[in-house]
Amino acid sequence: MSGHVVALCGGVGGAKLAHGLSLALKPQDLSIIVNTGDDFEHLGLKVSPDLDSVLYALAGLSDPVRGWGRSGETWTFMAALKGLGGESWFQLGDADLAMHVERSWRLKKGATLSEVTAHLCGALGIGVRVLPMSDDPVRTRLLTAEGWIDFQEYFVHRQCRPEVREFMFAGATEARAQPDALAALTRQDLRAIIICPSNPFVSIEPILALPGIRAAMQRSAAPVVAVTPIIGGKAIKGPAAKMMAELGLDVSAAAVARRYAGIIDAFVVDQADPPPESVPGIKFFRAATLMSTTDDRRQLAISTLRTADGLRGIFPVA
Amino acid sequence: MSGHVVALCGGVGGAKLAHGLSLALKPQDLSIIVNTGDDFEHLGLKVSPDLDSVLYALAGLSDPVRGWGRSGETWTFMAALKGLGGESWFQLGDADLAMHVERSWRLKKGATLSEVTAHLCGALGIGVRVLPMSDDPVRTRLLTAEGWIDFQEYFVHRQCRPEVREFMFAGATEARAQPDALAALTRQDLRAIIICPSNPFVSIEPILALPGIRAAMQRSAAPVVAVTPIIGGKAIKGPAAKMMAELGLDVSAAAVARRYAGIIDAFVVDQADPPPESVPGIKFFRAATLMSTTDDRRQLAISTLRTADGLRGIFPVA
Repeated sequence: MSGHVVALCGGVGGAKLAHGLSLALKPQDLSIIVNTGDDFEHLGLKVSPDLDSVLYALAGLSDPVRGWGRSGETWTFMAALKGLGGESWFQLGDADLAMHVERSWRLKKGATLSEVTAHLCGALGIGVRVLPMSDDPVRTRLLTAEGWIDFQEYFVHRQCRPEVREFMFAGATEARAQPDALAALTRQDLRAIIICPSNPFVSIEPILALPGIRAAMQRSAAPVVAVTPIIGGKAIKGPAAKMMAELGLDVSAAAVARRYAGIIDAFVVDQADPPPESVPGIKFFRAATLMSTTDDRRQLAISTLRTADGLRGIFPVA
Repeated sequence: MSGHVVALCGGVGGAKLAHGLSLALKPQDLSIIVNTGDDFEHLGLKVSPDLDSVLYALAGLSDPVRGWGRSGETWTFMAALKGLGGESWFQLGDADLAMHVERSWRLKKGATLSEVTAHLCGALGIGVRVLPMSDDPVRTRLLTAEGWIDFQEYFVHRQCRPEVREFMFAGATEARAQPDALAALTRQDLRAIIICPSNPFVSIEPILALPGIRAAMQRSAAPVVAVTPIIGGKAIKGPAAKMMAELGLDVSAAAVARRYAGIIDAFVVDQADPPPESVPGIKFFRAATLMSTTDDRRQLAISTLRTADGLRGIFPVA
């Protein structure tokens, strides 16, 4: 089946399916909208963790063992920085640092984050279109027992220890959604919108918070399919499960699906999980969602696309 | 003999004698004024090559083989930067990069270059006082057949190939000399002022171009002693000899001495060189000026200090 596919994703987990989709589709048939709510400035450098994870995954540069950052990484900079009394709570690998320095430099010269991302994709041989959710700053903040804290403070510095009560995407209402992202979501030839297996609260909902994105997805004639980030009541990586428990939600794939109610048409749960109870308006499907190998990524992408295509008989096509 | 010693120096060669002086003197008895005319902004980072060379030398971190940068350096960043299509003409080692990132970050937060340098000295366990020649930007530029070019463009990018006709220290007349540097040159207990074996045109003369520095040295009751950067008609490192030839000067220690006429009282030539013809107002001495080992550095420092102390009978003491 032909047509354009749009994927929404955050960092590591979502990036794996984004990579799978890039292997299953022609480059011109895929746009990936990436969360930038985790972006922050560190040591004067602009760091975009989710964009980096997606770029590394798509370029085949991700470290397969550590689960984040680049393969073949070295840590000389970090050791030297500690020796100079610098801030060492955020790990910056030597190769990873090239991304931050080059991005910061291009932004300082006046390029938009979208333009920088397009340049980096070109340099890394990435053919699909990777779009930051916005060129304006949006910052995910978390309300904890200690008050509101920034995402990286929570995620890296505090290692997700504080109990989370609420989320805020500072700047989201004033920000413009990336214009190509919004345009992609309203294409006439849209085949599917895929929500990758990312943290719903801090990876996907920042994207949905941008003006026009949620409405475009709700109005879309193309099927919207989300893939579970929860398998067997646990998140493969990151604090999604811990957050769900702290928010008083079931730690389950179904609870994630309910979070997306009104936006998605279908939800893919893991094949090892029991079929969830019904959620009005959402069809559930099962697939092998654990992506250990590159082929797992491709296979899950194909399954998800088939799920979307299968829904076409049910939903009106534009 | 007691009293305070002030050394003026540029990068690698001068830094060796600065290191020697730090080994021969108590920490509180030495101030080192360092050229910042080579400083530039690269990839959005503030780079101070001469300050770095001095700090690395004093901290025992210099690479002994490569002759610049840090020992135990790795180059992962640079390889990754090339992979991103970044500027690769200026080599940035992974450990060296920590210096540039930390300095840039502290400057961005509002610290002066002097404050940043003091912090870095503290972190690296350097007890002597290292002073940038100014906290204001001064930029060494060179007039070549192709017009005026910046120092790093000449030195690194063009590898000193363009023929040099003239030098300019842009910003020097509006800049303030570093206040502690100026104060050190006028101390009542000043024992000696040492001009390290650095390039006279692009390492020492930028310092002399700052308001008050040359006058303070001329007025100083303490002996001013320069050590030759030219041995056997050649520069140990860098473009000093090439520049001298292009400027129509003899490529000799005596020609460097003449360049410092009116400022210095004595000039130390290498023991392997013949005694130079006389220069009015300058006494010549000979010493082992080639510094291959740490002990060479200490010995040359001791010889230079003895030379200065020996002049005390001739010159009035404040």
